[in-house]
Amino acid sequence: MISQPTKANVLLVGSGGVGTMGAYALETGGKAEVTAVLRSNYEVVTKQGFFIDSIEHGNGIEGWKPTTLCNKVPNVAEEGLKPFDFIVVTTKNVADVKPTADEVIEPAVTPGHSVIVLVQNGLNIEKPILAKFPSNIVLSGVSLIGATETAHGKIRHDDNDSVKIGPYKSPNVSQEDSEAAAKKFVEIYNACGKVDAQFDANVPYTRWRKLIYNSSFNSVATILRMDTTRMRISEHVIDNLIRPAMLEIKATAKAAGIELPEDIAEVMIRVDPKDTFFKPSMCQDIEKGNYIEFENIVGEPMREAERLGVSTPVLKTMYGILKGLQWKTMEAKGLVVPKWHEESLYG
Amino acid sequence: MISQPTKANVLLVGSGGVGTMGAYALETGGKAEVTAVLRSNYEVVTKQGFFIDSIEHGNGIEGWKPTTLCNKVPNVAEEGLKPFDFIVVTTKNVADVKPTADEVIEPAVTPGHSVIVLVQNGLNIEKPILAKFPSNIVLSGVSLIGATETAHGKIRHDDNDSVKIGPYKSPNVSQEDSEAAAKKFVEIYNACGKVDAQFDANVPYTRWRKLIYNSSFNSVATILRMDTTRMRISEHVIDNLIRPAMLEIKATAKAAGIELPEDIAEVMIRVDPKDTFFKPSMCQDIEKGNYIEFENIVGEPMREAERLGVSTPVLKTMYGILKGLQWKTMEAKGLVVPKWHEESLYG
Repeated sequence: MISQPTKANVLLVGSGGVGTMGAYALETGGKAEVTAVLRSNYEVVTKQGFFIDSIEHGNGIEGWKPTTLCNKVPNVAEEGLKPFDFIVVTTKNVADVKPTADEVIEPAVTPGHSVIVLVQNGLNIEKPILAKFPSNIVLSGVSLIGATETAHGKIRHDDNDSVKIGPYKSPNVSQEDSEAAAKKFVEIYNACGKVDAQFDANVPYTRWRKLIYNSSFNSVATILRMDTTRMRISEHVIDNLIRPAMLEIKATAKAAGIELPEDIAEVMIRVDPKDTFFKPSMCQDIEKGNYIEFENIVGEPMREAERLGVSTPVLKTMYGILKGLQWKTMEAKGLVVPKWHEESLYG
Repeated sequence: MISQPTKANVLLVGSGGVGTMGAYALETGGKAEVTAVLRSNYEVVTKQGFFIDSIEHGNGIEGWKPTTLCNKVPNVAEEGLKPFDFIVVTTKNVADVKPTADEVIEPAVTPGHSVIVLVQNGLNIEKPILAKFPSNIVLSGVSLIGATETAHGKIRHDDNDSVKIGPYKSPNVSQEDSEAAAKKFVEIYNACGKVDAQFDANVPYTRWRKLIYNSSFNSVATILRMDTTRMRISEHVIDNLIRPAMLEIKATAKAAGIELPEDIAEVMIRVDPKDTFFKPSMCQDIEKGNYIEFENIVGEPMREAERLGVSTPVLKTMYGILKGLQWKTMEAKGLVVPKWHEESLYG
């Protein structure tokens, strides 16, 4: 009898496009068993499974389900569940709206055991996680996949799954353990043989590099509700907004010790395909009436710049605008009310 | 027989809310005869006249018409018309879209005779007029009226007509003649006894003062599509955007020799009534799909600041955003096309 090694017990929080394709890669690789937390698509997927058209795994995949489905984050202690080895978080990171990511995953985290893998946008998303779970390994991931849930349970995966995962420095866990955990996760993710997961020895570099794109294109797209192709065709949107924002991020990264390539702005300006009229994620969010994750994409780099004495007026102004837009969404969802109160400063 | 002094021959270009109430004041004062140029409301007004509810002239005014109506700016020379003594321009000033105000009024201007009265928003709106009509007196006016055309030919005038008119400095006409013309216009405007027209000895001060409000509230309202009450209730929109923009305008005015009151920003922040949820004009324009007059409200102060060595990063960023929004309106109206061309810098 050949001994069958135990599969990694993985919890996936956030089963939209990116998360579901991650679950698919992990399950089909045979080295992980995935429990997926579903929200709006729970009913449909429980009944019919996912329908997937994937550039890497094939089109017309019907009725696929991860090993376990649940409609909320399980409480491991209370439900007497086997501890999760990895908790992969692929939800949006909306730091200014409760519950935040650390609150969401709390019931599922086994202290000292579960490795928390954050595959999300923005800067310093790891800090509140580290603060709440100081004995857990935190991994930081940047995903470049193109994957969208076009309807509940229907996934279109049209650009390669390329993800970089590395250890996030923590005072309470050893660097070796963190690196080993990152390499282990990369291994079980790559086991399907179809995707490109890489161990990332320099997570801060990768994050700042991606911020060059996100702080600029993502913010401006959200404010103007404009795709990146139109910005490039107009030229003045690039000259007045995109490049200045990129250069502010580059300068902030440099002050933080991260030297990005000299031509990074010019490269990133042209990084999207020319004729896709692509709208970055935050623009898609605002058009759907969803909250936007501007706090980690613009707010944190801006605060980091302030801390380091770097001037970022463009980011700062865009931050003010994005916060105003978020206020409108909060009003639409009943979180704030346009009424004067006793302490109003400007009444 | 009592001798009847000749009435001033006035052309009004732009017969929306502000313009029509101006025409009404001029005509009912008995010292002017108004020819009004109508566009979208020409058919309706020719047939039925204007319907006016006015806080100053009374409600339920029916079927009122100025002396002469026309559907385009008359060509005085070609049509052999009596020269216009005053040409009052109350159209939007959209400097980046043809035809510009100077081109619009050209056929009606009698060189050396017609006094051109600009009652419009923004900085340096007088410059192209002066350049094209160097021998004409140019007056600069700031209106504080609340008047809206709610449907073609239907005017709601719900806040007092208070207008300041003064001479705009020109190298080719004497200051005395300009002042006399301004006082004459104020006199014929006030003749109805209902409105508050004032001679303005310091036009630049008045314009910079109004820019404090317009460059900030008007721009932010347009970008966020938010009324000024919500901005004040949120507080952070005031703190992050409105006040910083106001202080940039104040600093620029100072560099230009205009000393605004120390507390001008705090006063202007609270200037709108608390519970009207008022959307400034440029926001109303963008919501109607109209072009916005951002070049004179933000672009010119920004360029003036650059010339004077004043740093205005908030205005600059907002300018970039407003230009991007204008590009979208231009696309919607067919003025620009989202296609790559041979010289595209970012293709």
